[in-house]
Amino acid sequence: MEVGGNPRVIVLFDGYSKTGENFTLANCTCTLIKGPPHVIVDTMTAWDGEKIRKALAENHLNCDSIDFVVCTHGHSDHIGCNYLFPKAVHIVGFCISSGDKYFEHDFTSGQEYVVSDKVTVIPTPGHTMQDVSVIVRSCNGVVAITGDLFEKEEDLRDDRIWKSAGSDNEELQVKNRKKILEMADFVVPGHGPLFKIDKQEV
Amino acid sequence: MEVGGNPRVIVLFDGYSKTGENFTLANCTCTLIKGPPHVIVDTMTAWDGEKIRKALAENHLNCDSIDFVVCTHGHSDHIGCNYLFPKAVHIVGFCISSGDKYFEHDFTSGQEYVVSDKVTVIPTPGHTMQDVSVIVRSCNGVVAITGDLFEKEEDLRDDRIWKSAGSDNEELQVKNRKKILEMADFVVPGHGPLFKIDKQEV
Repeated sequence: MEVGGNPRVIVLFDGYSKTGENFTLANCTCTLIKGPPHVIVDTMTAWDGEKIRKALAENHLNCDSIDFVVCTHGHSDHIGCNYLFPKAVHIVGFCISSGDKYFEHDFTSGQEYVVSDKVTVIPTPGHTMQDVSVIVRSCNGVVAITGDLFEKEEDLRDDRIWKSAGSDNEELQVKNRKKILEMADFVVPGHGPLFKIDKQEV
Repeated sequence: MEVGGNPRVIVLFDGYSKTGENFTLANCTCTLIKGPPHVIVDTMTAWDGEKIRKALAENHLNCDSIDFVVCTHGHSDHIGCNYLFPKAVHIVGFCISSGDKYFEHDFTSGQEYVVSDKVTVIPTPGHTMQDVSVIVRSCNGVVAITGDLFEKEEDLRDDRIWKSAGSDNEELQVKNRKKILEMADFVVPGHGPLFKIDKQEV
């Protein structure tokens, strides 16, 4: 699924979660914002390096072309391949770093981080206390790449879906879900395909 | 620094944090528990792959020898090199996985995860809501590898140190710090050298 002109939002892999007997099969949605600057959002599990490399090549990029890695939060299915991107600035939840240099930025007070004139990172805690979302102002509308703030489109009508995926603060998550539904036209959720927001329903 | 016979606790790299003008230089303590099973606790930043490979080789191991990767929490300076260990089970905070298979385990209710008869992983939230610590019963005493539940030894006498390093729930962190100080003889903190607990002071 692609949205926009420049920057283009390209969902490289739709996330999923399927419950088995004593386990869940799960991986996150992995999204490329093709700029420049080029941004990858959520790097899946540590076992997905080859898939990511191949998907970037299909988009005429490689790991060293990526300027920013953003992990919406620090769960293992969202940070697994950060290792592939030593030339990028890494934003993992509320931490911004390059090597062992950690830059000051006050996400806790609500401050947005500006990647470019069309791409910002904003704090959206709830699922964890340090979740962020990436907001892209594309020519087709505003796209919010939210990680597990939204599990999948179905949880718009059934709160049990995102709650059962784990929430460190449900009240805060409700508040930030509402904020995203008001500001965005499309949502890229953590474990399902991109969906359009029906503004009649918000 | 080494502690114990079998399993042996070997601190591969002491963590640090030093404040600059608009940034902090920081990396986590990285610890090997040499078994078998072999466990690595906290894999530093995504830029530290070669350092870790070399340190394992000096201990007659390689990445494929590691049976468990434990990240005490999902901050970027603790998960950066998980990618190097595709043959291990990964425990990142409260999530336990191999590939896209996520195993059920109720850390939220306090349940410990048994790695071996001498090594367990227990929930110790506070710094994030999903922090874990690794408890090793070595022949020299109980070693607790705690990540940022303790920033460094100095914060035993100055709470401002661990609080300023970020805490999602200070009250919970105080409670879990106390629990560790009571149960352990040694602490491997997130950003400083291993220290011995003075039981007179606890």
